[in-house]
Amino acid sequence: MAHKTEFLYLSEKDTIEAGVLNAEKCIDNAEEVFTLLSKGDYLMGGSNHNSHGLGLVFPKESPFPNMPVAGPDRRFVAMPAYLGGRFDVCGNKWYGSNAENPKKGLPRSVLTVTLNDKDTGEPLAFMSANLLSAARTGAVPGVAARHLARKDSEVITVLGCGQINRSCLRSIATQLPNLKKVICYDIFEAAAKKFLDWEKQELGIDGEVILDLEAAVKEADVITVAASRLKPLYVKDEWMKEGVTVLITGPMQTDDSFWMRSKLIYDNVRLHEAYVQEAVESGDIAGYYKGVIGGPIYTLIDAGKMPPLANSTSIGEVILGEKPGRQNDFERVTFVACGMATFDVGLGYDLYKTAVENGIGTMLTLWDDPYQK
Amino acid sequence: MAHKTEFLYLSEKDTIEAGVLNAEKCIDNAEEVFTLLSKGDYLMGGSNHNSHGLGLVFPKESPFPNMPVAGPDRRFVAMPAYLGGRFDVCGNKWYGSNAENPKKGLPRSVLTVTLNDKDTGEPLAFMSANLLSAARTGAVPGVAARHLARKDSEVITVLGCGQINRSCLRSIATQLPNLKKVICYDIFEAAAKKFLDWEKQELGIDGEVILDLEAAVKEADVITVAASRLKPLYVKDEWMKEGVTVLITGPMQTDDSFWMRSKLIYDNVRLHEAYVQEAVESGDIAGYYKGVIGGPIYTLIDAGKMPPLANSTSIGEVILGEKPGRQNDFERVTFVACGMATFDVGLGYDLYKTAVENGIGTMLTLWDDPYQK
Repeated sequence: MAHKTEFLYLSEKDTIEAGVLNAEKCIDNAEEVFTLLSKGDYLMGGSNHNSHGLGLVFPKESPFPNMPVAGPDRRFVAMPAYLGGRFDVCGNKWYGSNAENPKKGLPRSVLTVTLNDKDTGEPLAFMSANLLSAARTGAVPGVAARHLARKDSEVITVLGCGQINRSCLRSIATQLPNLKKVICYDIFEAAAKKFLDWEKQELGIDGEVILDLEAAVKEADVITVAASRLKPLYVKDEWMKEGVTVLITGPMQTDDSFWMRSKLIYDNVRLHEAYVQEAVESGDIAGYYKGVIGGPIYTLIDAGKMPPLANSTSIGEVILGEKPGRQNDFERVTFVACGMATFDVGLGYDLYKTAVENGIGTMLTLWDDPYQK
Repeated sequence: MAHKTEFLYLSEKDTIEAGVLNAEKCIDNAEEVFTLLSKGDYLMGGSNHNSHGLGLVFPKESPFPNMPVAGPDRRFVAMPAYLGGRFDVCGNKWYGSNAENPKKGLPRSVLTVTLNDKDTGEPLAFMSANLLSAARTGAVPGVAARHLARKDSEVITVLGCGQINRSCLRSIATQLPNLKKVICYDIFEAAAKKFLDWEKQELGIDGEVILDLEAAVKEADVITVAASRLKPLYVKDEWMKEGVTVLITGPMQTDDSFWMRSKLIYDNVRLHEAYVQEAVESGDIAGYYKGVIGGPIYTLIDAGKMPPLANSTSIGEVILGEKPGRQNDFERVTFVACGMATFDVGLGYDLYKTAVENGIGTMLTLWDDPYQK
């Protein structure tokens, strides 16, 4: 009997039609994924089930003139995952990044996601994943804002005015009913101004550009950090308000005292344990820590200055009511997220289902019947 | 200025039209890839540039009823690579396997390959990769037969009568001008008979089924090993002829004396060094070795009974004339291959180029202009 295999192709435009720009829906999706992470109903790569992904590491120099060499944001990464619950599907995100891309009219990263039947491995969908990835990245601090930020927060400061913080702000703003002001900070004034213009048009909230970092953060009720990996910001502990909520999506440097006195909530403690394990295996713990968002925290934990990861809280536990999140208006709460393929698979799956239900996308035939069985 | 991104989709049928079943062309392609591997003009995953890939490891048991659990050939793997030379392209193979698939009329593994611009990360092609992967897997021992087998070889023994050995035999046979007989061995008689029928029809060479392993290998000039990972064969040293060429694509067990007295040629010594490194990092060297084809060899090397990998020979060095291959008709030469994403990228690229030149496949639009830059 012939076994025909078809799958759905979704262009970027198709993913928009399927709802990828609907921030509230993407937050609901990410919240559901967080509860599955917390329960353990997922798998990522490797024997620890929590590898972030496998990248092509470009060498600093090469005897081969065509071989790509290390450069700003220059990498390719494959990120496989299985996600359980009602998703119950496998998938892989695969992307290439290059800081030179914008000069060519391209986004810094070009991403695709493949979804596969968990049992047979047959592809279900292949899709453009730039907006998907941005949406899930933004939705993660959106979930954190829903559960951790003071509901009376009026001022949000955006540290790093790039595409990632656009997604973050679009998402976080839906969770802050009293938001009155957006402060835009970037090391490049033009980027901050462009962000402010976009924000006013897209969200219609008042705002201003502040180029002095201390002034930019000191009145913030919420801070969203997604600055470039290349130039992480140093935000002094004393600059930040009591009761502030700091949502960390990109690297941030601060005083040890900030990490030690803030209530830290992780996206998924197991992921951070895997990072520490990979750091140990790499043979250069300090070097590895420099490359990951949680590095400064792991350093303090290793030094015995903060409680071990095993005793820490994942946001999924807060969502499920198993551990406390914010407990009063005065404590400072910091949320640290690193990006997991499970979110790409989760949101990709919902886009795929919406597309199937609404006839969006292009159905493609892998084979009418496999040539070899 | 708008930056439109398009890529080519190739179904399995399209890859046939583009030449994936042309064994001689696939061998030429693999030979070229081997020379690039030998020169070092490639990258695979990880900081050692030689990771085989990153897999989803299914747990032995799970509290979640839907989560896949470990089972025969049950895995998903992402295999990224950059390949230099005239290819100069990045790509990723992604597949899911399940020994239950044939019951559903599907091949054991379902594979796709994505090719990407090395600089921008834009997809160039997305293709069905079952035949591609089979062809490159078969082409590898084909290259080895071209350079290592006695040209007067008349008898080939096929150990393991599955899809992989079909590709291997189709490929190896093109390199043995005096081939007169194919001996088919499998632990399942029906599989061996089916293979013999296929071989007679496809290649038109005389053959027979021999179910006694000793009898099957003792008259062989060339042996191709691609038996199931689940039940590796034990082939005694004393059964094999002087001058035999053993082409190992799947695990084989034999006496230590065989490994120690055979001239061993590897597909790529660096890959095997990476396997050993990963075994050390896993914390369970013996357990890790059990899961990889080279395990019995690495064990002998670790025990000081065989020379270290660093002093060993890759077939690329033989092709380039840098190190000797077979030097007389009496020595036994064994070739060990493990599968590398570079071959998928190399062959995928040539299929893609052929498809573009001949108007094969379906052009798809990723975006007319990226929504976010």
